[in-house]
Amino acid sequence: ICGGPCHLSKALIMSKGTVVLAYSGGLDTSCILVWLKEQGYDVIAFLANIGQDEDFEAARKKAESLGAKKVFIEDLRSEFVEDFIWPSVQANAVYEDRYLLGTAVARPCIARQQVEIARKEGANFVSHGATGKGNDQIRFELTCYALYPEVKIIAPWRIPEFYNRFRGRTDLMEYAQKHGIPVPVTPKAPWSMDANLMHISYESGILENPKVRQVLNVFVGSPCLSLSGKHGVGRIDIVENRFIGMKSRGIYETPGGTILLKAHLDIETFTMDKEVRRIKQGLGIKFSELIYNGFWYSPECEFVQHCINKSQENVEGKVQLSVFKGQVYILGRESSKSLYNEELVSMDVQGDYDPCDASGFIRINAVRLREHHRLQGFSSTKQ
Amino acid sequence: ICGGPCHLSKALIMSKGTVVLAYSGGLDTSCILVWLKEQGYDVIAFLANIGQDEDFEAARKKAESLGAKKVFIEDLRSEFVEDFIWPSVQANAVYEDRYLLGTAVARPCIARQQVEIARKEGANFVSHGATGKGNDQIRFELTCYALYPEVKIIAPWRIPEFYNRFRGRTDLMEYAQKHGIPVPVTPKAPWSMDANLMHISYESGILENPKVRQVLNVFVGSPCLSLSGKHGVGRIDIVENRFIGMKSRGIYETPGGTILLKAHLDIETFTMDKEVRRIKQGLGIKFSELIYNGFWYSPECEFVQHCINKSQENVEGKVQLSVFKGQVYILGRESSKSLYNEELVSMDVQGDYDPCDASGFIRINAVRLREHHRLQGFSSTKQ
Amino acid sequence: ICGGPCHLSKALIMSKGTVVLAYSGGLDTSCILVWLKEQGYDVIAFLANIGQDEDFEAARKKAESLGAKKVFIEDLRSEFVEDFIWPSVQANAVYEDRYLLGTAVARPCIARQQVEIARKEGANFVSHGATGKGNDQIRFELTCYALYPEVKIIAPWRIPEFYNRFRGRTDLMEYAQKHGIPVPVTPKAPWSMDANLMHISYESGILENPKVRQVLNVFVGSPCLSLSGKHGVGRIDIVENRFIGMKSRGIYETPGGTILLKAHLDIETFTMDKEVRRIKQGLGIKFSELIYNGFWYSPECEFVQHCINKSQENVEGKVQLSVFKGQVYILGRESSKSLYNEELVSMDVQGDYDPCDASGFIRINAVRLREHHRLQGFSSTKQ
Amino acid sequence: ICGGPCHLSKALIMSKGTVVLAYSGGLDTSCILVWLKEQGYDVIAFLANIGQDEDFEAARKKAESLGAKKVFIEDLRSEFVEDFIWPSVQANAVYEDRYLLGTAVARPCIARQQVEIARKEGANFVSHGATGKGNDQIRFELTCYALYPEVKIIAPWRIPEFYNRFRGRTDLMEYAQKHGIPVPVTPKAPWSMDANLMHISYESGILENPKVRQVLNVFVGSPCLSLSGKHGVGRIDIVENRFIGMKSRGIYETPGGTILLKAHLDIETFTMDKEVRRIKQGLGIKFSELIYNGFWYSPECEFVQHCINKSQENVEGKVQLSVFKGQVYILGRESSKSLYNEELVSMDVQGDYDPCDASGFIRINAVRLREHHRLQGFSSTKQ
Repeated sequence: ICGGPCHLSKALIMSKGTVVLAYSGGLDTSCILVWLKEQGYDVIAFLANIGQDEDFEAARKKAESLGAKKVFIEDLRSEFVEDFIWPSVQANAVYEDRYLLGTAVARPCIARQQVEIARKEGANFVSHGATGKGNDQIRFELTCYALYPEVKIIAPWRIPEFYNRFRGRTDLMEYAQKHGIPVPVTPKAPWSMDANLMHISYESGILENPKVRQVLNVFVGSPCLSLSGKHGVGRIDIVENRFIGMKSRGIYETPGGTILLKAHLDIETFTMDKEVRRIKQGLGIKFSELIYNGFWYSPECEFVQHCINKSQENVEGKVQLSVFKGQVYILGRESSKSLYNEELVSMDVQGDYDPCDASGFIRINAVRLREHHRLQGFSSTKQ
Repeated sequence: ICGGPCHLSKALIMSKGTVVLAYSGGLDTSCILVWLKEQGYDVIAFLANIGQDEDFEAARKKAESLGAKKVFIEDLRSEFVEDFIWPSVQANAVYEDRYLLGTAVARPCIARQQVEIARKEGANFVSHGATGKGNDQIRFELTCYALYPEVKIIAPWRIPEFYNRFRGRTDLMEYAQKHGIPVPVTPKAPWSMDANLMHISYESGILENPKVRQVLNVFVGSPCLSLSGKHGVGRIDIVENRFIGMKSRGIYETPGGTILLKAHLDIETFTMDKEVRRIKQGLGIKFSELIYNGFWYSPECEFVQHCINKSQENVEGKVQLSVFKGQVYILGRESSKSLYNEELVSMDVQGDYDPCDASGFIRINAVRLREHHRLQGFSSTKQ
Repeated sequence: ICGGPCHLSKALIMSKGTVVLAYSGGLDTSCILVWLKEQGYDVIAFLANIGQDEDFEAARKKAESLGAKKVFIEDLRSEFVEDFIWPSVQANAVYEDRYLLGTAVARPCIARQQVEIARKEGANFVSHGATGKGNDQIRFELTCYALYPEVKIIAPWRIPEFYNRFRGRTDLMEYAQKHGIPVPVTPKAPWSMDANLMHISYESGILENPKVRQVLNVFVGSPCLSLSGKHGVGRIDIVENRFIGMKSRGIYETPGGTILLKAHLDIETFTMDKEVRRIKQGLGIKFSELIYNGFWYSPECEFVQHCINKSQENVEGKVQLSVFKGQVYILGRESSKSLYNEELVSMDVQGDYDPCDASGFIRINAVRLREHHRLQGFSSTKQ
Repeated sequence: ICGGPCHLSKALIMSKGTVVLAYSGGLDTSCILVWLKEQGYDVIAFLANIGQDEDFEAARKKAESLGAKKVFIEDLRSEFVEDFIWPSVQANAVYEDRYLLGTAVARPCIARQQVEIARKEGANFVSHGATGKGNDQIRFELTCYALYPEVKIIAPWRIPEFYNRFRGRTDLMEYAQKHGIPVPVTPKAPWSMDANLMHISYESGILENPKVRQVLNVFVGSPCLSLSGKHGVGRIDIVENRFIGMKSRGIYETPGGTILLKAHLDIETFTMDKEVRRIKQGLGIKFSELIYNGFWYSPECEFVQHCINKSQENVEGKVQLSVFKGQVYILGRESSKSLYNEELVSMDVQGDYDPCDASGFIRINAVRLREHHRLQGFSSTKQ
């Protein structure tokens, strides 16, 4: 009743078409691969290397053995950094004051490539293993629709035939055994984990209880972008608001991103005009929300990114910092584009500055305040 | 030529009136006290206890010995916390993404009391020792003008007769010796320092060179609001934009404030609706700018504070955190007002949530994106 | 497959439950009434009087004759004005710079009452005749879900069984004739129209072509809130952005609302502090978007409304205006709460204002500009 | 005491330097011209043609006869339109919801040229006849400081020697007679007026009483940019907030600007993405405030202008409108860059749109609302 992919009859002789599946090599997407074939699709498996710790060749063989028509394993690390991480750093992108968006920036990077493959291979369908309650389904699919408007999306975890059949891990394990899908031998951690160059996230399972303290056991030590993972830089435990209106708990470890954010904030304030900074700060918050919600490829995100880009023209220089016991300290900064004027600000030198001007400045700023309070008839100062 | 306090003739038999001087006990304001008397004013010294490390009785004696007509030493610590620090915490007040406003929130607290004394004592003048390039003069004076619109302000560091006479510390020392003002025996640190319950700030002197790294030597370890000062929590070295349009460098140590900010951010997101949070975030940024610029007592600050207050109605609960090697980690949270719905968000339980709805949600969100990209004639996805 | 109301089996002995239908008396909702009964529901017809030109008693009889279990016709005019129009006027609510939201504010007013009836009558279902591409379905349903979270909504124009059966007006006419539904005798205008106390809107049909000029023929002359409808006040022809991401064309006539907006804007600026006004302006824009999108009953709308309310404490006074040939001219204003200080602003009187202060004010504001342009190395002023 | 231009000793043999004076040809600036010479300056008179109704040759002769060293009369009309009016139209620039900024955009245009002349002629000073309570002094001087940071500004109406000597029109008349300055023969209107290509403003005098209704007598009928002045388009009577914190009353007539604004708003919404529009709307408000306050030449204004420019890339098309009895009506629009999709939005055609999707969209948007209201324990819907 509600859109194409729902109508999946069980037996077909001809292929229903080709699906490019975002494949991770894990249990879920392996089952999905097989299930899609069972539904009558040809499946192309696509696995993006965005810096996660993975045996890519093993994943390729697994996908092939499960019947993938083709397998694409693509190294997206440098475009992930250049097209997605850098713009986020330039925006000082932080969602809800805390989350550095490590997962959110990875999704459009992966989906862009998947769509590219789908176009090249003439596939009309794309598929993914994201759940029906999360943000990733949205980030993934909005990118696909934006870049490939006619694409059809198969999201098994939102298809009753699929999610009613696979109600838990046990069902997936059973299905795997029945269909010759290799089953993981090590027990699953009681939470899920997602890693890339920028960060590692931990969520769901026992972490769904927001009171449960897990932070110190959970971290595996991210190898992300620096050695700072070793030092526990950028570890946070937060409750965040998903786009679909639920609150969820996430634990994140973003060592490199945290250092980059702090260094960028520092050199930006050093080289950018104060009022440009205020406007840009607002645009950066907007940008963060857009990324979080999956609108990387949207007219407004392109617009905001263009504006932020413009603001960065003179943001360059050198920031000295120390990473010490989980903390990033800025020690000093220098830049040929600095707007910092040591003579002007000095307490020891008057420079081209007449302190008398400040009297006028203050008194004019007070005109409105004096009027207001006089008219309010304030007799006592303590309210 | 330019306003009342400039016209200071040198010899007068009658008093020109009474000045309430914000007195710190240090060299500068001691010289100002004597100088004001020399100019023909009666001087009331006022020293606020806002948690700084000070021998208040010694300061009282010193002021009396220098000829203060009266000396008021007032313990403002609890009103500083309740009327100024709590509202800032509720606003998650941070200026330019980093500075927790420890000095900025103290100024209106002190000036409010000073004005109260001036009114009670029938004094027409107030005075302070803030410099002509800084923010504090503005914060101080806007508060005075707002709460006591008719007041006349004497800011010696902006009066040519004063600042031309006292061109450096040596001039002040000489003047002190000549007028029997006790001179500090320990050498002055090569920067200035200001402390209160909320934070310690370090600036000027050798710190004016933004490249000079001092952060590790500078900190004295703040006793502020907790024992967290010992652990180096909340230490930052930043360049900030002053209201008057200069960039300046400040080093701050805000241990208690940092912990309170992180805990409040956490419980707020846990208990506040997502979209209320977005609007309140914007108001909090506005509030921070207003505080920084000295507009605590302004119609807009009252308005914003009222709005933020309203947003906090359900923000309550318990946050568990650890302070470890300079870092504050949130470990978990609970609240009877929580909007977190563990069942709704769970990956293992469907709850009152139909995953099919997400398909429609995404497709409607994509309507605009698909239109846009179709009309732009995107043929390739990589730009 | 996709949610409750889709599962409508055709023959049932027992009632599926009771539906409160937002009934207009027109062809569409009359057909829906009969169709819902056909589907096995008991139907309560609800018709709100919000100032539209309607024969309410005829509508009642029609609903009864079609088999409505009960008919509620409720006069909501005063609560429409007090609870919905006044807050919008206070917010200067205008969507996308032009649309005064006359339809958008009516929807939550109607739906609130409908939910009230549903609760009282123990009905688990509500239904409406809004189309699947418009804003009204959203405004209607979000209100219902917010105020009656467990309610089930039947939106026939989104149910394939319904919209596939009724593909155009002809199908509805045929169905009506077959089921004894009185058929309108006058030919339908080539557009649709919706009227209430605040405005009349005209859309769809031949107006869907954005180039077609209809504005001068279309207007029937709204009797809304004043005699100003006669004068053609508040007529606009716009393209607007619907919440679902489409652009649509609407023609609106909001005479009373336009006069109220202009008068309120005037007295507000007269009595409200400048900086409060700036913040409130932003909140008003937010409020307008929320209303337009259907979020009247949402935590953020309650919050924003509370803030706007606060800002209005001193907004009162008398505005003289003339309505002349379609135009509203403000002629003068007065208020006991005015912040306008005739002496202060006078060019002929100096008042308590020292023009020298302006020099300092300007020079301090120029500090940053001079620095910037000096550092940019501007040699020529024309770029 | 307070800055350079205050120190004006009365007799000097050598010239103090050259001043470029913004000369209007009227009584005030004629007196200033003579007074500046009296103070020992060489004076260059500069008169900009920005579309006002003026006998420029008569003004030239008058300035020469008063002793101007040189006279520059420059036709800035086309650069006024291209560099200042167009960007304002693109921004939909309106200050405080009503004022179209006709005076504010003219000031930086004039001052830019004045600075250009000062640089070319080696003049260290610029001067103007703006008063000490208004906005124009700020707009004028911030432009000068931004484009010529070392310039010295002589603002006679802020110099006690000047304003104490000329306390009213009578003093100026006397001085004029004494110094051979031609005195106006027609009596002055009881308000002041300022005209340019974009608008005419009327203020001060009897208009300072905000209650006095003058609107119908005051207008002279602007010849601005169209014939629409004849029809009384764009006439407003407002109270506005000056940058210096006073409220003032202004009456404006902006016929061409009003038509351009309405037409631009229309074609912009037709061709611009909804969410880009929202962000751009905020930037436009910011831009308006910057222009009003005199920050045309500031880093933030350049930045915002760049962003707005970007947003206009596809804003083009044809808007049909009628100007009728003071009112501007949009009749229709068309554009090759339109984002309006007639088929998509049509009520008669389903197009590539599945109404079922809207159900999911609404239900997901309701997740948060249902949670909120359930947790608030709302039992009754009317509050």
